[in-house]
Amino acid sequence: MSEYNAPIAEMKFVLRELVGLDEIAGLPGYEEATPDLVDAVLEEAGRLAKDVLAPLNQSGDREGAAFENGVVRTASGFPEAYNLFVEGGWGSLPFDPEHGGQGLPWTLATAVQEMWSAANLSFSLAPLLTQGAVEALQAHGTAEQKAAYLPHMISGRWSGTMNLTEPQAGSDVGALKARAVKQGDHYLITGQKIFITWGEHDCAENIVHMVLARTPDAPAGTRGISLFIVPKFLPKADGTLGERNDLRCVSLEHKLGIMASPTAIMSYGDSGGAVGYLLGAENKGMACMFTMMNNARVSVGVQGLAIAERAYQQARSFARERIQSRAIDSSGSAGVAIIQHPDVRRMLLTMKATIEAMRALAYLAAAALDRAKHAPDADDRAGAQARIDLLTPMVKSWLTDCGCEIASLGVQIHGGMGFIEETGAAQYYRDARILPIYEGTNGIQALDLVMRKVLRDEGAAAAALLLEMRTDVTAMNSPEAEAVGVALIELDAATDWILETGAKNPRLAAAGATPYLRLFATVAGGWLVARSAAVARRLLDAGEPLPDRSFLEAKIQTARFYTGNILPRASADAAAAMRGAHSTLAMDEAQL
Amino acid sequence: MSEYNAPIAEMKFVLRELVGLDEIAGLPGYEEATPDLVDAVLEEAGRLAKDVLAPLNQSGDREGAAFENGVVRTASGFPEAYNLFVEGGWGSLPFDPEHGGQGLPWTLATAVQEMWSAANLSFSLAPLLTQGAVEALQAHGTAEQKAAYLPHMISGRWSGTMNLTEPQAGSDVGALKARAVKQGDHYLITGQKIFITWGEHDCAENIVHMVLARTPDAPAGTRGISLFIVPKFLPKADGTLGERNDLRCVSLEHKLGIMASPTAIMSYGDSGGAVGYLLGAENKGMACMFTMMNNARVSVGVQGLAIAERAYQQARSFARERIQSRAIDSSGSAGVAIIQHPDVRRMLLTMKATIEAMRALAYLAAAALDRAKHAPDADDRAGAQARIDLLTPMVKSWLTDCGCEIASLGVQIHGGMGFIEETGAAQYYRDARILPIYEGTNGIQALDLVMRKVLRDEGAAAAALLLEMRTDVTAMNSPEAEAVGVALIELDAATDWILETGAKNPRLAAAGATPYLRLFATVAGGWLVARSAAVARRLLDAGEPLPDRSFLEAKIQTARFYTGNILPRASADAAAAMRGAHSTLAMDEAQL
Repeated sequence: MSEYNAPIAEMKFVLRELVGLDEIAGLPGYEEATPDLVDAVLEEAGRLAKDVLAPLNQSGDREGAAFENGVVRTASGFPEAYNLFVEGGWGSLPFDPEHGGQGLPWTLATAVQEMWSAANLSFSLAPLLTQGAVEALQAHGTAEQKAAYLPHMISGRWSGTMNLTEPQAGSDVGALKARAVKQGDHYLITGQKIFITWGEHDCAENIVHMVLARTPDAPAGTRGISLFIVPKFLPKADGTLGERNDLRCVSLEHKLGIMASPTAIMSYGDSGGAVGYLLGAENKGMACMFTMMNNARVSVGVQGLAIAERAYQQARSFARERIQSRAIDSSGSAGVAIIQHPDVRRMLLTMKATIEAMRALAYLAAAALDRAKHAPDADDRAGAQARIDLLTPMVKSWLTDCGCEIASLGVQIHGGMGFIEETGAAQYYRDARILPIYEGTNGIQALDLVMRKVLRDEGAAAAALLLEMRTDVTAMNSPEAEAVGVALIELDAATDWILETGAKNPRLAAAGATPYLRLFATVAGGWLVARSAAVARRLLDAGEPLPDRSFLEAKIQTARFYTGNILPRASADAAAAMRGAHSTLAMDEAQL
Repeated sequence: MSEYNAPIAEMKFVLRELVGLDEIAGLPGYEEATPDLVDAVLEEAGRLAKDVLAPLNQSGDREGAAFENGVVRTASGFPEAYNLFVEGGWGSLPFDPEHGGQGLPWTLATAVQEMWSAANLSFSLAPLLTQGAVEALQAHGTAEQKAAYLPHMISGRWSGTMNLTEPQAGSDVGALKARAVKQGDHYLITGQKIFITWGEHDCAENIVHMVLARTPDAPAGTRGISLFIVPKFLPKADGTLGERNDLRCVSLEHKLGIMASPTAIMSYGDSGGAVGYLLGAENKGMACMFTMMNNARVSVGVQGLAIAERAYQQARSFARERIQSRAIDSSGSAGVAIIQHPDVRRMLLTMKATIEAMRALAYLAAAALDRAKHAPDADDRAGAQARIDLLTPMVKSWLTDCGCEIASLGVQIHGGMGFIEETGAAQYYRDARILPIYEGTNGIQALDLVMRKVLRDEGAAAAALLLEMRTDVTAMNSPEAEAVGVALIELDAATDWILETGAKNPRLAAAGATPYLRLFATVAGGWLVARSAAVARRLLDAGEPLPDRSFLEAKIQTARFYTGNILPRASADAAAAMRGAHSTLAMDEAQL
């Protein structure tokens, strides 16, 4: 069984040196986030992740969640671990102190979330879904709703879910059919929902389902969807649990991965109607849903990062221990640890360099979120909001695609052992595969980037980021920055192509959307690793005594590897977007 | 459950128009392979694949192979299917008529093997391993050994295995410890072997293990390895089965995929020693093993192709049926089949175009094998042998990496359903993952390409292929050929880099080996799809009535998609090889 050690030094470097956590901690409302507190949170979270969550990862995978007579039993140890998580107050980190939250920056919460997801992806989905429901309640709930639900959900004693999907309505949320009929102060909900993550389980006292449904006279499509709070147990006025609502888990899915996360088919209103309370206004459910979903998309990107980190740690340990074959330039016959073989190094460095770029991009997005919420100046807030909007589809899509690629490299480094389930590497490969799919498939993220984030503001947010990158790499004056500067020319050209094409031929722009997203994220990742190297050089050149000289020197090497081996993919994606998209549309459907 | 329909039109196009099956059928010894017979073989094999093997694929995955009290029970239906396979004579296709083979070209056998692997990868491994053992016996067996084993193994009534791996000796075969002590006309074998595919099962009457072991005074490393024939039941002089040999299956592995293929841990000589017969000379086991392994490597590449084709067929069906969201350029609200969405088309075309390049490359390798065996002229045979040697690591590595990528795209196209095991797409993703690992990891293939296939003959075989590609694309004079011509410049440069670097710094060349292999294979694939388009244009321009006009037009579109979307990756790999490899070696091991 493999250990997980939270990469705290890496995390601190990104938080402090790359995305400005200290500055964020100076924003109004974030005064609690002193450097000492940040360090203590990271250390404590790392301990829980390592000692409690990580040891349940493989056993949870083997045992899975079980469904019997309407009851879901999570894998051994999960309810106890969940209790420890709640007692530690870990779910409350970024939330409003008014309802029991700790009011800490999302940037910090994102690093901590990386730990939960790396230690135990299945487990981490429970607090993640709760977090989405909390955000929806914070943004759209009435004072009574907030008082009734938020303290319990922020503490984690009650968990939350998102109920969007129906068999005919996956990516096309507007096609959903669940119904909500008004009755006095509440609605009666009927319908079936599928793919409900942690939709039923035995870890929390209550489960608060956020359910999308239609009222009888609602317009068709997404304009006629409303969001409802549908608790498993109806809370009484005094905050205790009342009667059981008319909803049930019908069964659990048999999945490729995240076995310990119960994915429920939920039925509402089999006995007349589940009691639901409208959240926000009627027919405004999509807006509420996007409140949940946007941050969840960043979180799913972080899951891609997390599983990549876990796969990397395990592969690196194996490569250091496994003795196989002599070194290529040795005349001796003694076997060496496979980490010495150039191709194994290549795989490990591909993992490491990509992970560092992924982490920087994810935390950068979280930092933008904090600035969008807490910057004193309205223009700064708007600029930060535009930045997080732009980055969200890239973080979700690129980090999850890379997560799958890195988990696959992790299997490969193990050789034949990688294919044996006991080794554990295969679990990451299976678990990671959901990430490019849920919370909006990666294809939908690419469309979101092109249509909503680049075309809608006529390229303003993209131009702002491109300008920042250009200014930055020009100032750095390093070989890595120079390579990023060359790639930026292609990203500029592809962005112009998107702007020109999207206006007159959206179908063609859509055909280039995925390579464009990959191009953008790969270059942004290059910018951030080049910046890491620049920071490292500055610290090394300062001539002060450094305890972490080797760590900083490695940053420079990692940036070189990234620009030499990963960044060249940007050209391929630029070509595919600008010159390949035509051929995507040319063939007749029947010829496929 | 998904159907499998052998892509016979595609196969015939590649066999006849690209790799010259008609010419191969004119070689001495291949007179049987008339066009009518070839067509009949493809049709009949397609029927067995579709009607018998494919329906057992998902049930076999769910049920797996079971181990109880030393006995392995394969999944329901497997023994019956195996019987039908033997009765149909399918295992005997490419083998010597003297021992009951049909003497048909490997090129044809490769197309047929693609069908078995696509229909049911787990099943197909049984005849594949038998095939490897037959080849070793044909090449190195005595007349008595051939007479005793070949008729039974070529018919498939006895199956074969390869016993190489031990826990400490995976890629490093030379580290193996199994022992063989001479005793009269045979040897007594002791030791444990792991990862033995179809090492024990209930489908064949006898299992003939080909076991690598050391004699007591053998030199260390690979120079002291001998190969032994170790049958489960010792054959009597009259060909009937005699006593049970001293070997047993200890257990089966719990794997990520190919669940229905029993992967055995085998123990030899627990009761004193298993009777083994030396194959070839003492200490020449590695040469015998490579006889088995080289063709097996091409076959594993074909498995990558096969699983990609199967994943593509299922994803395409789903994309045609699944209605979700309106078309991007439509003002209506009606949902459309997702095949109409540009990003889904992009994924399907990535699968289709890559598969066509993969198939062409695999069959080209098989055709070289036929020419190396049967060309009347010795120089032609030598040239063909050099070609197959060069292509083998590319076919094994590139086709299996692409197989994993394409199986992953198949999951993605299914959206949430792709992650549910019942859908079937996830099985291909799991099954495919073994392919880059077994028969020599893909990293070892890349080293083989660089060190043995390019450097050893000072680039002669590579230069011959590069020249053929250059001449060909110059003559074609099409936009696709032009794109391949540009990529060839990079391949030329990278080949020069390998030749220069390999001589003075093998470690650096090794660091660039994987991107160099990918570059070479991607460009070779581009050459072959460009040639497909050229053939299609020629046939379309001939002005004769064509039943398959649409098929030929699609070839041109596919080539355009490949050169616009896949081929640009060649630049990224060229850069990674020539400019990225330094940074692979620079970092200190402890900094990883």
